[in-house]
Amino acid sequence: MSGLSHFDADGKAHMVDVSDKPVTARIAVAEGFIKMAPETLALIVEGRADKGDVLGIARIAGIMGAKKTADLIPLCHPLPITKVAIEMTPDEALPGIRISATVKTGGQTGVEMEALTAVSTTALTVYDMVKAVQKDMEIGGIRVTLKDGGKSGRFENP
Amino acid sequence: MSGLSHFDADGKAHMVDVSDKPVTARIAVAEGFIKMAPETLALIVEGRADKGDVLGIARIAGIMGAKKTADLIPLCHPLPITKVAIEMTPDEALPGIRISATVKTGGQTGVEMEALTAVSTTALTVYDMVKAVQKDMEIGGIRVTLKDGGKSGRFENP
Amino acid sequence: MSGLSHFDADGKAHMVDVSDKPVTARIAVAEGFIKMAPETLALIVEGRADKGDVLGIARIAGIMGAKKTADLIPLCHPLPITKVAIEMTPDEALPGIRISATVKTGGQTGVEMEALTAVSTTALTVYDMVKAVQKDMEIGGIRVTLKDGGKSGRFENP
Amino acid sequence: MSGLSHFDADGKAHMVDVSDKPVTARIAVAEGFIKMAPETLALIVEGRADKGDVLGIARIAGIMGAKKTADLIPLCHPLPITKVAIEMTPDEALPGIRISATVKTGGQTGVEMEALTAVSTTALTVYDMVKAVQKDMEIGGIRVTLKDGGKSGRFENP
Amino acid sequence: MSGLSHFDADGKAHMVDVSDKPVTARIAVAEGFIKMAPETLALIVEGRADKGDVLGIARIAGIMGAKKTADLIPLCHPLPITKVAIEMTPDEALPGIRISATVKTGGQTGVEMEALTAVSTTALTVYDMVKAVQKDMEIGGIRVTLKDGGKSGRFENP
Amino acid sequence: MSGLSHFDADGKAHMVDVSDKPVTARIAVAEGFIKMAPETLALIVEGRADKGDVLGIARIAGIMGAKKTADLIPLCHPLPITKVAIEMTPDEALPGIRISATVKTGGQTGVEMEALTAVSTTALTVYDMVKAVQKDMEIGGIRVTLKDGGKSGRFENP
Repeated sequence: MSGLSHFDADGKAHMVDVSDKPVTARIAVAEGFIKMAPETLALIVEGRADKGDVLGIARIAGIMGAKKTADLIPLCHPLPITKVAIEMTPDEALPGIRISATVKTGGQTGVEMEALTAVSTTALTVYDMVKAVQKDMEIGGIRVTLKDGGKSGRFENP
Repeated sequence: MSGLSHFDADGKAHMVDVSDKPVTARIAVAEGFIKMAPETLALIVEGRADKGDVLGIARIAGIMGAKKTADLIPLCHPLPITKVAIEMTPDEALPGIRISATVKTGGQTGVEMEALTAVSTTALTVYDMVKAVQKDMEIGGIRVTLKDGGKSGRFENP
Repeated sequence: MSGLSHFDADGKAHMVDVSDKPVTARIAVAEGFIKMAPETLALIVEGRADKGDVLGIARIAGIMGAKKTADLIPLCHPLPITKVAIEMTPDEALPGIRISATVKTGGQTGVEMEALTAVSTTALTVYDMVKAVQKDMEIGGIRVTLKDGGKSGRFENP
Repeated sequence: MSGLSHFDADGKAHMVDVSDKPVTARIAVAEGFIKMAPETLALIVEGRADKGDVLGIARIAGIMGAKKTADLIPLCHPLPITKVAIEMTPDEALPGIRISATVKTGGQTGVEMEALTAVSTTALTVYDMVKAVQKDMEIGGIRVTLKDGGKSGRFENP
Repeated sequence: MSGLSHFDADGKAHMVDVSDKPVTARIAVAEGFIKMAPETLALIVEGRADKGDVLGIARIAGIMGAKKTADLIPLCHPLPITKVAIEMTPDEALPGIRISATVKTGGQTGVEMEALTAVSTTALTVYDMVKAVQKDMEIGGIRVTLKDGGKSGRFENP
Repeated sequence: MSGLSHFDADGKAHMVDVSDKPVTARIAVAEGFIKMAPETLALIVEGRADKGDVLGIARIAGIMGAKKTADLIPLCHPLPITKVAIEMTPDEALPGIRISATVKTGGQTGVEMEALTAVSTTALTVYDMVKAVQKDMEIGGIRVTLKDGGKSGRFENP
């Protein structure tokens, strides 16, 4: 399958050989959101100031999720992650929570999968924490907005 | 935080006590999609018939992801999953792949988080497998479409 | 080794056969503490009200730790945990944080190892979160205070 | 929360960025104990020479526990551990088992959490192995006694 | 693919639906061996009596391996294992170590994969422990010798 | 136990200190097979071209298995794997599937355990996928055929 590096010339999946790629400083940023009713959002935002910290717990889950990326995604290389930070912004216009994850490594391949997995796990945890009050929330907009540091150069997708 | 069962009366997070809930047959269905360029979709669809089976690998990742739900989502109960099935449908109008996951258990709590985690992991794996040819794909539309078998009754969100 | 059920008659370790034990409602409570300088404790207590929620994060880690017990302790049976709750109480007399974990299951063996693992992981996470300001903290007093629900009857160790 | 590096300026938890820290040889030593009745200790000590090797199994659990540190402690960086050794010394005066763990890495952050996790897991495993004969054992004295190799210099806590 | 229950009618892999299968007492026994030079075997056998307990460590690894089966084998159901026992017998005629694993559960599907995984992990660990003295050892003869307790009846393969 | 590096001078197991070993490019190749009835082999081979891709799924499991090596084998160092490739060749003369795994790293110790674990997991997954039609398959011939890149030099075992 021409162009798809995860397959060899015979179409068999493999973990790509990155042995000869240099160890470079790499960064990736991904974003996404979870959309919900205004009342659900209000419940989360109040809880944050008061008690029942949905966003704090989701952030921890997202950080831990980034560390599990190579466990979840079959052909991902295990990477020594050097930073994970997750921003969550309540957005009344959505309405819902906007999520952004920044991941860094000094490694031989990029960390966009780690950033995407962090966003997904954060969103899933928000869903889990508030599903008792709303079941028809929707997770979406998950995409890579920045990737830099490898031989393929800087990718921006604002 | 009234209504949010994952917090106690003082707003402290806990894994909810389900000890006294009966073991019942439960099912959940979740869906989502990954949107991509028509050329990327074509590459996946051809590969399926020919060589380089992106969807087959993503399906396996999704099934294994469902089994990792209680590892990823902090307050999820570990559950004896009894079925996981994942459908992937190429959709040229999207364009991209539509994903649906069905999970069953005989347990004391529902499996919607397992179904959502299966969809997310499937979509992330598709992203990983084809990111060499397109980086600005987007994962979205992740939501629960059916949940049944617990005391809260049948939930449909078609 | 007479009396030690984790060894067979020849002294070989095994995971004890609990196949014929009934599934009963079981509970265990364990406690422990982490001792620190009064200034460190003050930093944690302030953060709780304000920002930087050490205890909230440690609680999540403790709950997730309980779910990893059978992964960490070689001869533990995997159990369907039905509840985990963790209390943390700042104690100026210690000075430090007192930790208590309650775990329930409906299973064939007790959950005292899950409760102990929850306390340990909670304490280790507190250590990790504040080690930048104090390195000579001490974790101790980890013990089972209550176990009930199995054939060996109620054990109290107040 | 000033001084606590695991939080950013807004009090949000993050995995600290260590990208620009040099890879250096690092070592950490932690210790702890599990206190028990003299008869329980005798059972363990005899078993060691004869059959039913409690300490040998606990050592393996402790080594494997060190490798799970980044899985257990939310904000720990995954590190390429290069050595784990665990000493266990029966102490009739305690009475009980004294545990010491030494961990090394060539990495960008210290390994004191790995050493503490190794000690905790070792102690928990001893508890599990002999709990059939004594339930009121106590785990304590868990602390870092040596840390060296990073920019913060040598820390000794004998 | 007719007969292969892990695929649906369209040839897509799924985790088979066992929701309606009764929970029954199940057992499986698997065996295998690791073949080595007589000198390597002698080293292991001496160590057992003296110091450096290769077989004791491999046994623990095998028991823990059984608990990881559903993590390793994509379409395996997670099962509440109720017993794991591993026998290792030095065989001078082989020469090498013969391994047998017995696994029980009360569940909805069989435990032959758990028994096979226990044997494999035990053998791999023996290899790891003695590879410093011999690299051309061989692991083989891994097969199921007994399976009982499900609707397909008793299977014996002595 | 002289010669066995996984034990210290007192016969206690440890994770060997590799801190001072240089990071070098390393490779290991391992092989094995799973033997089955000709009809079972035919079912797999047909499925490959048609539907129900046993070998494709087993390949993914083997790659993911390689990443779990340090989790499964107690004294293995965690390593940054840089490549995993798995070849599977149907062999009518066996009859069965011949499996070969190639693993690379840039690390301080070899990857033969990763290659062996990849082969084992691949073979176990093939067993799992077709056990509905044949239960008396046998896994064997698992051995290292090539190891290169460390201070002990090139090892070939064709």
